[in-house]
Amino acid sequence: MRFETISTGDEIVRGRSRDTNGPWLARRAAEEGVLRRRHTDVGDDPEALADAFAAAGTRADFVVVTGGLGPTEDDHTRVAAAKAAGVGLVSDADLEATIFERYRARGVPVRESSLRQALLPAGAHPLGNPVGTAPGFSLPVGRALLYCLPGVPHEMEAMYESHVRPALVERRGPGVEGAYRSLATFGRPEAAVNDLIGDLMRAKEPSVGVTADFGIIRVTVQATGSGAAARAEATEAEVRQRLGDLVLPARTLEEAVALELGRRGLTLATAESCTGGLVGALLTRVPGISAHYVGGGVTYSDRLKTDLLGVPGALIEAKGAVSEEVARAMAEGARRRFEVDLAVALTGVAGPGGGSPVKPVGLVWIALAGPRGTEAVERRFLPDREFVRRLAAHTALDLVRLRVGSP
Amino acid sequence: MRFETISTGDEIVRGRSRDTNGPWLARRAAEEGVLRRRHTDVGDDPEALADAFAAAGTRADFVVVTGGLGPTEDDHTRVAAAKAAGVGLVSDADLEATIFERYRARGVPVRESSLRQALLPAGAHPLGNPVGTAPGFSLPVGRALLYCLPGVPHEMEAMYESHVRPALVERRGPGVEGAYRSLATFGRPEAAVNDLIGDLMRAKEPSVGVTADFGIIRVTVQATGSGAAARAEATEAEVRQRLGDLVLPARTLEEAVALELGRRGLTLATAESCTGGLVGALLTRVPGISAHYVGGGVTYSDRLKTDLLGVPGALIEAKGAVSEEVARAMAEGARRRFEVDLAVALTGVAGPGGGSPVKPVGLVWIALAGPRGTEAVERRFLPDREFVRRLAAHTALDLVRLRVGSP
Repeated sequence: MRFETISTGDEIVRGRSRDTNGPWLARRAAEEGVLRRRHTDVGDDPEALADAFAAAGTRADFVVVTGGLGPTEDDHTRVAAAKAAGVGLVSDADLEATIFERYRARGVPVRESSLRQALLPAGAHPLGNPVGTAPGFSLPVGRALLYCLPGVPHEMEAMYESHVRPALVERRGPGVEGAYRSLATFGRPEAAVNDLIGDLMRAKEPSVGVTADFGIIRVTVQATGSGAAARAEATEAEVRQRLGDLVLPARTLEEAVALELGRRGLTLATAESCTGGLVGALLTRVPGISAHYVGGGVTYSDRLKTDLLGVPGALIEAKGAVSEEVARAMAEGARRRFEVDLAVALTGVAGPGGGSPVKPVGLVWIALAGPRGTEAVERRFLPDREFVRRLAAHTALDLVRLRVGSP
Repeated sequence: MRFETISTGDEIVRGRSRDTNGPWLARRAAEEGVLRRRHTDVGDDPEALADAFAAAGTRADFVVVTGGLGPTEDDHTRVAAAKAAGVGLVSDADLEATIFERYRARGVPVRESSLRQALLPAGAHPLGNPVGTAPGFSLPVGRALLYCLPGVPHEMEAMYESHVRPALVERRGPGVEGAYRSLATFGRPEAAVNDLIGDLMRAKEPSVGVTADFGIIRVTVQATGSGAAARAEATEAEVRQRLGDLVLPARTLEEAVALELGRRGLTLATAESCTGGLVGALLTRVPGISAHYVGGGVTYSDRLKTDLLGVPGALIEAKGAVSEEVARAMAEGARRRFEVDLAVALTGVAGPGGGSPVKPVGLVWIALAGPRGTEAVERRFLPDREFVRRLAAHTALDLVRLRVGSP
């Protein structure tokens, strides 16, 4: 079944407010095993709305429209739906009676604009609103059944549950189910992950996709139809087997580090220069991390590298603050001074200024000091301050994860 | 000019991850006076993508597509754009050379999948990516010029600035159809800001809206039609006048702090417990902050509060780590030990565990030590770990901004 959604409103199409209805509908439909094929945002323009509804009617079987059903001048969904269906507007007697009743209960005369809410495209089926005043309707447009709901999220959600979900399930037919799995990897670029699971990604069912976020490559597996859960699980197992220790044992790097530190009962400190506290900020997102993470130094200035971590001023002078030697001295100083099992240190050129031919923007040294000695890695990240800092922080966390995880 | 955007990706159309590129492009184009008419989300399906591109080419003058340009099997934008334009794919010699060069620099053989990134629709104009590896391209499709950019937000944003914005402004011509202004506030909740500018928000033209993000309330003003720029400016001035020193002198709190520290030539250190380095991580997002921010201590454990900041163990014992007294001692210790003009300290119960009737989850003490003494504020934020930490960090930055900004 081809399912689409359309969100209406100038504030959405102009980027001033975020549409939450579209993503919500996609997730709820996926729970019924129906995958959304397309979503459209359109402004409060009757022509553009009618065009979007008609176009959806040529492609889709089931369309949910949100917004534009209120009593105000910029609510055009009724008119546009009628136009897309090639019908006129008629006033629904039951809806009219409900509106008169509402005003009578409040003891005020009926406002003419409110009566607009009784107008429906000819042939539309009215949908009661259990939690608000704007009614909705369903209407055949082209090959699709078009459901028009109010834009206020809690009204839209209540009407989805009472009217739309049952119709969606009925149209979908029996025996369809969907299943969704995902895992996170770190340590290889997107292209390398693709090489390892490209054949699975080319298969249509289950569908396998990857998304990248500051070096974390997330692999998702989605299966539909009967036996979806078992097929999604089998594909996930195959992905895990191929990607090996690239796969994190948790959703995020900081959770993976917390998990590994917990397993081994180890303590950790940080010594951060170019990341300015980002590694600590990530680690302390994890509740309960205080059992293993003690804190550390944000040694942004050279003076603090010496005062807090005991890095000799002469070493910084001789090798430069961004060097293997200083990274090692930072990690070893933090491990000694903060009395922990492991200390990780970062120093780099985040940019945009401060680079040189020998030490370009993006160069980062990361050192990890532990009971078995100190290791240091050099990385060159792409020249954008935010990216360099995030990837440096992620790489440091991954270094801790791999060191702690492998005995 | 008719401007549209298209975001691609199964994870977006299926509601699994939120598209931020579409709204960002709409806001940035609005700043140039170009109002977006439509936005479409489509999955990783070459047929559906080609159909969406071709349809946009019949309606729009200028279309920006994000995503689907990576090296992996589910990246279909090149193929779909070629199909929509009715042309074939050709390998671009310059892009090929760049890819070979990148691999040569790393000393590894070229991966075949990476060479897919050199393929472009015939007649396309390649667009360099200053911060990543996926190149983009522009291509005429129907009556529109189609710009295809990578989906990674910071790459997309950099390429918008260098390639798309100039082309958009040129196509727009001198006839500006809208004007857009925005400002950021901190210190009062959304409802309070609403009360101060509610009448402006009810007006249709210019339209005024607010969005909230961890306590930062952003107010946007949008005007359309002739004289839009002057009207938007007048409304913005009225908003600024009513909101007074809630209005930040920059886009973010960390930029506002950097600005004020720069104006007065002051230095700052941090001492963070519950935020774990977040204040430092925010401050060091600002290039050049090293002239004023020296770093500080992530004193997550009580021992580090004593070792790094000199907070007496007996004080922590007597008052508890989350107390006004310890917050003050942290700030004063950091100011003295790190030899700075100002030091800001945070200690709180981020949750979900660790709360008590006297010190509930969400309680945060923030202290600021400076040449005119130490002030401390108590806050109770909502009981969600991430929200407590973010709001605490923002409140600490705002405290610094207001103290430094007012002589």
